[in-house]
Amino acid sequence: MTTLLSHAGPEQPTLRVRRLRLHTQHQPVVVMRTDCHVCRSEGLSARSQVLVSGGGRELQATLFQVEDDGHLAVDEVGLSETAWEMLNLAEDAKVQVTHAPAVESLASVRRRIHGNRLDSHALTEIVQDVVAGRYTDVQLAAFLTATAALPLDENETADLTGAMIAVGDRLQWHAPVVVDKHCVGGLPGNRTTPIVVAIVAANGLVMPKTSSRAITSPAGTADTMETLAPVNLDIATLKRVVEAEGACIAWGGAVHLSPADDIFVRVERELDVDTEGQLIASVLSKKIAAGSTHVVIDIPVGPTAKMRSEDAASHLATRITAVASRFGLTAQCLQTDGLQPVGRGIGPALEALDVLAVLQNAPDAPDDLRRRAAILAGVALEIGGKAENGKGLALALETLAEGRAWKKFEAICNAQGGMRTPPKALHVHPLTAPHAGRVVHINNRKLSRLAKLAGAPEAKAAGIHMEVRLGDETDRGQPLLHIHAETPGELAYALDYAAGAGDIIEIEA
Amino acid sequence: MTTLLSHAGPEQPTLRVRRLRLHTQHQPVVVMRTDCHVCRSEGLSARSQVLVSGGGRELQATLFQVEDDGHLAVDEVGLSETAWEMLNLAEDAKVQVTHAPAVESLASVRRRIHGNRLDSHALTEIVQDVVAGRYTDVQLAAFLTATAALPLDENETADLTGAMIAVGDRLQWHAPVVVDKHCVGGLPGNRTTPIVVAIVAANGLVMPKTSSRAITSPAGTADTMETLAPVNLDIATLKRVVEAEGACIAWGGAVHLSPADDIFVRVERELDVDTEGQLIASVLSKKIAAGSTHVVIDIPVGPTAKMRSEDAASHLATRITAVASRFGLTAQCLQTDGLQPVGRGIGPALEALDVLAVLQNAPDAPDDLRRRAAILAGVALEIGGKAENGKGLALALETLAEGRAWKKFEAICNAQGGMRTPPKALHVHPLTAPHAGRVVHINNRKLSRLAKLAGAPEAKAAGIHMEVRLGDETDRGQPLLHIHAETPGELAYALDYAAGAGDIIEIEA
Repeated sequence: MTTLLSHAGPEQPTLRVRRLRLHTQHQPVVVMRTDCHVCRSEGLSARSQVLVSGGGRELQATLFQVEDDGHLAVDEVGLSETAWEMLNLAEDAKVQVTHAPAVESLASVRRRIHGNRLDSHALTEIVQDVVAGRYTDVQLAAFLTATAALPLDENETADLTGAMIAVGDRLQWHAPVVVDKHCVGGLPGNRTTPIVVAIVAANGLVMPKTSSRAITSPAGTADTMETLAPVNLDIATLKRVVEAEGACIAWGGAVHLSPADDIFVRVERELDVDTEGQLIASVLSKKIAAGSTHVVIDIPVGPTAKMRSEDAASHLATRITAVASRFGLTAQCLQTDGLQPVGRGIGPALEALDVLAVLQNAPDAPDDLRRRAAILAGVALEIGGKAENGKGLALALETLAEGRAWKKFEAICNAQGGMRTPPKALHVHPLTAPHAGRVVHINNRKLSRLAKLAGAPEAKAAGIHMEVRLGDETDRGQPLLHIHAETPGELAYALDYAAGAGDIIEIEA
Repeated sequence: MTTLLSHAGPEQPTLRVRRLRLHTQHQPVVVMRTDCHVCRSEGLSARSQVLVSGGGRELQATLFQVEDDGHLAVDEVGLSETAWEMLNLAEDAKVQVTHAPAVESLASVRRRIHGNRLDSHALTEIVQDVVAGRYTDVQLAAFLTATAALPLDENETADLTGAMIAVGDRLQWHAPVVVDKHCVGGLPGNRTTPIVVAIVAANGLVMPKTSSRAITSPAGTADTMETLAPVNLDIATLKRVVEAEGACIAWGGAVHLSPADDIFVRVERELDVDTEGQLIASVLSKKIAAGSTHVVIDIPVGPTAKMRSEDAASHLATRITAVASRFGLTAQCLQTDGLQPVGRGIGPALEALDVLAVLQNAPDAPDDLRRRAAILAGVALEIGGKAENGKGLALALETLAEGRAWKKFEAICNAQGGMRTPPKALHVHPLTAPHAGRVVHINNRKLSRLAKLAGAPEAKAAGIHMEVRLGDETDRGQPLLHIHAETPGELAYALDYAAGAGDIIEIEA
């Protein structure tokens, strides 16, 4: 249709790009003048979705408009930092701005909202559009909510997993066995990964571990590990580290193994919603893209863990194993005790200190963290062929005790760019026992909330240091935990919550 | 807890507000410097939800951050227009900025996502938080999607309706009977309301009609009526108009009869999702708040109308009647023909011209629009006690034929601020028949989409003028419809869609 040539053709008026140094987190925002001729001729208004194109590059963004304020010129389009990085043009480069094209895959999202299952084709189109930045946050929220309200079934979960792998990079290794581990989360302080990787790699298995940042928790492995060594490794660096040391502990987002997941996770965090189907697609897409052949999955079970019952955990385990097998990945799931936090620290730096204590065989190292890590590493050693069935745990403990795990961990950190010392918080405040008695219940969810309000995971030093465990006897006024915060505002915010949250740690007189 | 006094007390550092004249539509945005001491001490980062308080007023907003650009000072907080209007302080007024408090009602939204029904208490808390601006768009999208995926049941619908009434203003009239009408929509061009109001009011019934703007359609009654007279009436003006003329045709959003609905509708528009429960709560909350005692509901049924089957329409009618009766409102629902557009125009101004033609008894006035309006007005006259059962239609047609409806309509427009002439589009382009034959199918959804892409409803003159109806014979190359657009960009955008949309109007050779 020839009429359309004028729509995007060379006679279309151009604008100059201008970097605003405006931080909008992940949301790409562009700003144009209300009296801009392009806004008038295109019929663009505030919050229109626009397509910015120039220099062979394209960007979809949300438009804000500004009246003549003496700063932005009428023939300029201002770009937020995210928009600037995505478009990647020089200052004053010429671009055209039009309405963003209609997003056809949203019809599938609407069908899904109304209870219709989606096939592989529909899910692939959705994921492609999401990764291309064509979904607004409102539309992303609708997709994620729809797949929480009517949970993804096994076919959908597998199809979503496949779609998420297809839009990302994929790693390949020259090893017959590549092991991985994952914890489904929900248990504060359960930071076994750095220890497991060190043990497994010390025994000669390949373990290119990529981890996520926190979704709804006070710390993800990447957040914690970042206080010990750089984790933003590009693919070339990651490969070099793994070739040198047999393992790495890197942030998955930096290597774009699952760029769709990085986007979904941000919205899940704002909603504080995390579903089984999304969880499986998120985990397995990254494991498969990372080239893993075997994976050990830790599923903590407890009334305030993510998995509240053994039935729910079994359902998850069965679903994970089934979906993994469709992609030729062997998954072994372990249900573990999820009654209370693991170790003493909750939050990136505080958890890192626990990890160091275990690896260095410090006398006060938390024994529960040591044991959990050794059990998981033991299974990995068994399925990876380095230990006979039933002998994995002993080999793992031995690897720790002999200091071989610590040596391997140091080597990995150095290969990733050098070891770091975790930061310490300036503001530390105790929560004390209101009366003497025995600790009978610890609410993991409230602890996580408290640690997040104190600033974790963004504030690396923030979080909680636990002073008691289930069954401990305590006197009136004795500290149950210490809140660590980097700023007085965040400390006050956490204390405000603690004052009104009811029992976080329950003491029976 | 004394620690907290420092959190919001007088020693908390203050910032000066600065109006940015930045248009972000409904989203309140504030901008602070990345190096601002408040951002550092509070741990605020881009896209944090913040609470701005000062002068006894509060505002919750999304924070963006800007590096030192020589414009915003380090002790200033810049406000978008929406934020500026909501906070309503003078330039340079002192405010404090802190983390927004946790929104407790989101726990109910999460429970609802996971399939748990909500009671009146939970829905009331959600609606209160929504109206207070405490929900982000992502959170609003999650609530609306959850109530689409697992549809609101009758109790929830009634409770949501009640909650939405409670947060808005409510009108009262000194009349025993106050009638209203509503069309559930989905049928382009079905603009009976102005005609019905004129007929009913000409016969002495009180009809304080408030209408909405388009949600997912190319025009709402308020959009159309705005091309004929002012519709942004405040409550005082609306009352004066109704006292003088017995009726008005105003935009409901301006009188805040259902402020929660105004917010939900914006997100529903972005999602293009519109559910039965939200529809009923939206309609009935506004009717009840407007003080209506009787309401006639038009439910068009057709394969491409909103209601696709008589069963679905019956379900909706039963649910509307039941929920209405809980609030003492008598609702009478009519299923009407929804096979094709009504009248010739689709889009605000083009529909207004059809309305004028019917009211003025123009020889070329669309007969289908006249007849539908008369049927609905007839039912209103019957339930309002102005006509015996079965005699309403005749009285309505007579009121039109005698010019009494036109006279009343002119009087209402004048009372609302003066009659206007609908604008005309500069860019008009035909879509022609690809071959000779008979019109056998018209796709209402694709027509609506086409009219929206042409710019409706924001561009008042934009839309579609139909040249054929079902059953018409057409020659090859004869116009089936004309697309009207205000800008070349929007015309191109609509033509682009038309080229790829398949049959919008199906011709059988």
